[in-house]
Amino acid sequence: MITVLCGGVGAAKLLEGMCAAFPPEEVTAVVNTGDDDVMHGLYVCPDLDTITYTLSDEVDRGQGWGLSDDTTNVMAALERFGGPAWFKLGDRDLATHMYRTGRLRDGVPLSTVTAEVALSFGLGIRLLPMSDQEVRTRIRLADGAGVSGELAFQDYFVRLRHAVPVAEVRFAGAAEALPAPGVLDSIAAADVIVIAPSNPVISIDPILAVPGIAAALRARRDRVVAISPIVAGAALKGPADRLLAELGGDASVVGVAKWHVAHAGTLVIDQLDNALRDAVVSVGLSCAVTGTVMTSVQVAADLARFAVAAGRLAGRV
Amino acid sequence: MITVLCGGVGAAKLLEGMCAAFPPEEVTAVVNTGDDDVMHGLYVCPDLDTITYTLSDEVDRGQGWGLSDDTTNVMAALERFGGPAWFKLGDRDLATHMYRTGRLRDGVPLSTVTAEVALSFGLGIRLLPMSDQEVRTRIRLADGAGVSGELAFQDYFVRLRHAVPVAEVRFAGAAEALPAPGVLDSIAAADVIVIAPSNPVISIDPILAVPGIAAALRARRDRVVAISPIVAGAALKGPADRLLAELGGDASVVGVAKWHVAHAGTLVIDQLDNALRDAVVSVGLSCAVTGTVMTSVQVAADLARFAVAAGRLAGRV
Repeated sequence: MITVLCGGVGAAKLLEGMCAAFPPEEVTAVVNTGDDDVMHGLYVCPDLDTITYTLSDEVDRGQGWGLSDDTTNVMAALERFGGPAWFKLGDRDLATHMYRTGRLRDGVPLSTVTAEVALSFGLGIRLLPMSDQEVRTRIRLADGAGVSGELAFQDYFVRLRHAVPVAEVRFAGAAEALPAPGVLDSIAAADVIVIAPSNPVISIDPILAVPGIAAALRARRDRVVAISPIVAGAALKGPADRLLAELGGDASVVGVAKWHVAHAGTLVIDQLDNALRDAVVSVGLSCAVTGTVMTSVQVAADLARFAVAAGRLAGRV
Repeated sequence: MITVLCGGVGAAKLLEGMCAAFPPEEVTAVVNTGDDDVMHGLYVCPDLDTITYTLSDEVDRGQGWGLSDDTTNVMAALERFGGPAWFKLGDRDLATHMYRTGRLRDGVPLSTVTAEVALSFGLGIRLLPMSDQEVRTRIRLADGAGVSGELAFQDYFVRLRHAVPVAEVRFAGAAEALPAPGVLDSIAAADVIVIAPSNPVISIDPILAVPGIAAALRARRDRVVAISPIVAGAALKGPADRLLAELGGDASVVGVAKWHVAHAGTLVIDQLDNALRDAVVSVGLSCAVTGTVMTSVQVAADLARFAVAAGRLAGRV
C-alpha cells in the first residue's frame, strides 16, 4: 500500500504515474483541502477536483485544472450581474460543485462525498480529503503589497495570481479539525508514504496542520519520501519558490529539505540539482536523484517507482 | 401607484399587461416566496424569477418559466452523479441562482438582491419579495396519495407534478417572518391593489400568511381587486381548481370569491362565468366581468386596465 500526500496539479501528475506503475487500488491519496472555498454558494475543492479530473483523463491539460472542452455558459450569464469574475468555473465543473454542495447540505461528510465523486469519475485509487472539517488557508501579505489584513487563499492565489509578497500563512480551523476517516490508518499501514512535489507551504503544510497527521508521519519517518517541487531553484508551477524565500527558507532543494526534514526521511531531487546532493544530506535526510519533471505519464510512472523504491530501501536499513 | 400581489406564470402575464397599460415605475409587485427552495446549495426563487424573466422578455414562452434558448450543460453533467434529476435548471438560469446565493451568503437581504437582479434584467417595475425571511410552503398529502409526512413545495409541485390529492397546506416560518421593506407601504399607498390571477392556496395565501400583510389589505379592502385564476371551473394552469376543492372550497369563481372575500372588495371574473356573477356578489364582494384569459400582452393590458378601473371605481363609492 502506498499513501501520497497531495496538493493540486503536481500531485495529480504524480498520481497518474502511480496508477501507471502500481495497481491503483493500492494507492491512497490524502489531499489538501485548505484551498477549498465557497463561490456563489457552491463548495469548491480545487485540489480534490484537479486530481479527480486528471486521473479520469478529463482534465483540461492546457491549464492543468477544470474539465477539458468545458463550456462557460453559466459564467458568461453571471457577467450581467457585474461583481467579481476572477474565479472561472466551467459548466460541467459546476455540476461537480453543485453535487458536492447539495450532499454536504444533506449532512454527508466531505470524505463520503469525495468517494462518491471519485466513483462517478471512475477512479481506481482511494481519494481522501485531509479532514471532514473546514480548514482554511489564510494569507497575510507583506507590508509592501498594499493589501492589509488576511486574504482567503483563492483571493491570493487566483485573483492576485500569487504575484504579491507573503508575510504569513496560517490554517484557520486546523486546530479543531480531525483527520478524515482513513487518513491516519493509511499512513500507519503504508509500505511507503510519498509527499508529492506539491508546494510545501500551501499544499503540504495544511495537511500537516491537522492534528495527528504530522505525528503519524514522524512515526514512519524512515518510510516517508518527499519529492522536491523545486528544480534548479525554481518552482515548476506556482509560487513555491517565492513562498519558501519569503517565509524565511531557501528557494532550493536544500530549502525543501529543511521544510520536510522533521517528518521525511528521504528527499528526491532532480538531476539538475545533483550538485546540491551533499547539502541536502547535511540537512539530515537521505537524498535520491532522478528526473522529476513529469513531461509524460511515463516519466511520472518512473518517478513514482523511484520514490517508492527509495522509501522501501530506506525503511529496510 | 398600483400594487400587485403575485405568484408565478399568471402574475407574470398580468404584470406584462400592467407595464403596457401603465408607466412601469408606478407598479409594485409583491411576490410569493413560499415556493423558494435550495437546490444543490443554490437558492432558487421560482416566482420572482418567472416574473423577472417574463418582464425582460427573456422567458421561455413555451414552458412559461426559465430563460429562452437556455442550454442545459450543467444539468447534463450532473447526471453522472445519479441522484434526483427532476428539478431542471438551465445554465443561464443557474447564473441567477448563483448570483443570488452568493449575495445572500454575504448577508445581503433577499429584497436587495431581488432589486439588483431586476435592475440587471432591465425591469421598470419595483419587485419585492413578500418577506426577507424564509417562509416555506409545506404540503401534506391526503391519505390515499401513498406519501406520508409533509413535502417541500417543489417536491409536490415539480417532482409529483401536483397530480396528488392534498390534505393540508401550511407556511412554515410565516409566523416569525416580517413583510419585506416596502411591502406594507406599497399596499397602504396604492391607488389600487390587484391580486393577480394566481393560485389562491399556494401563491396568494403564503403572502397573506406573513404577519401584517392581510391586515394591510383589509384596511384597504375597497381598493383590493382580485382576478380569478379559475375560468369555467378550471384553472388555466396548475392545480388551483383541485386545491380549492380538496381543501374544502369550490373549484369555481364562487370558491375564489369565498377565498378572497375577507380582504378583497372586488372579484374580476371571465365572461365565461357571467352566469355566476350574482353568486359571486352574494358571497359579499363586487363582481366585474371581462376577458381574463391572457392570450396576448394586449389582452393582459386590457385586463390590467379593467381591474385598476374597477378598484378605482369601488374606492370612490
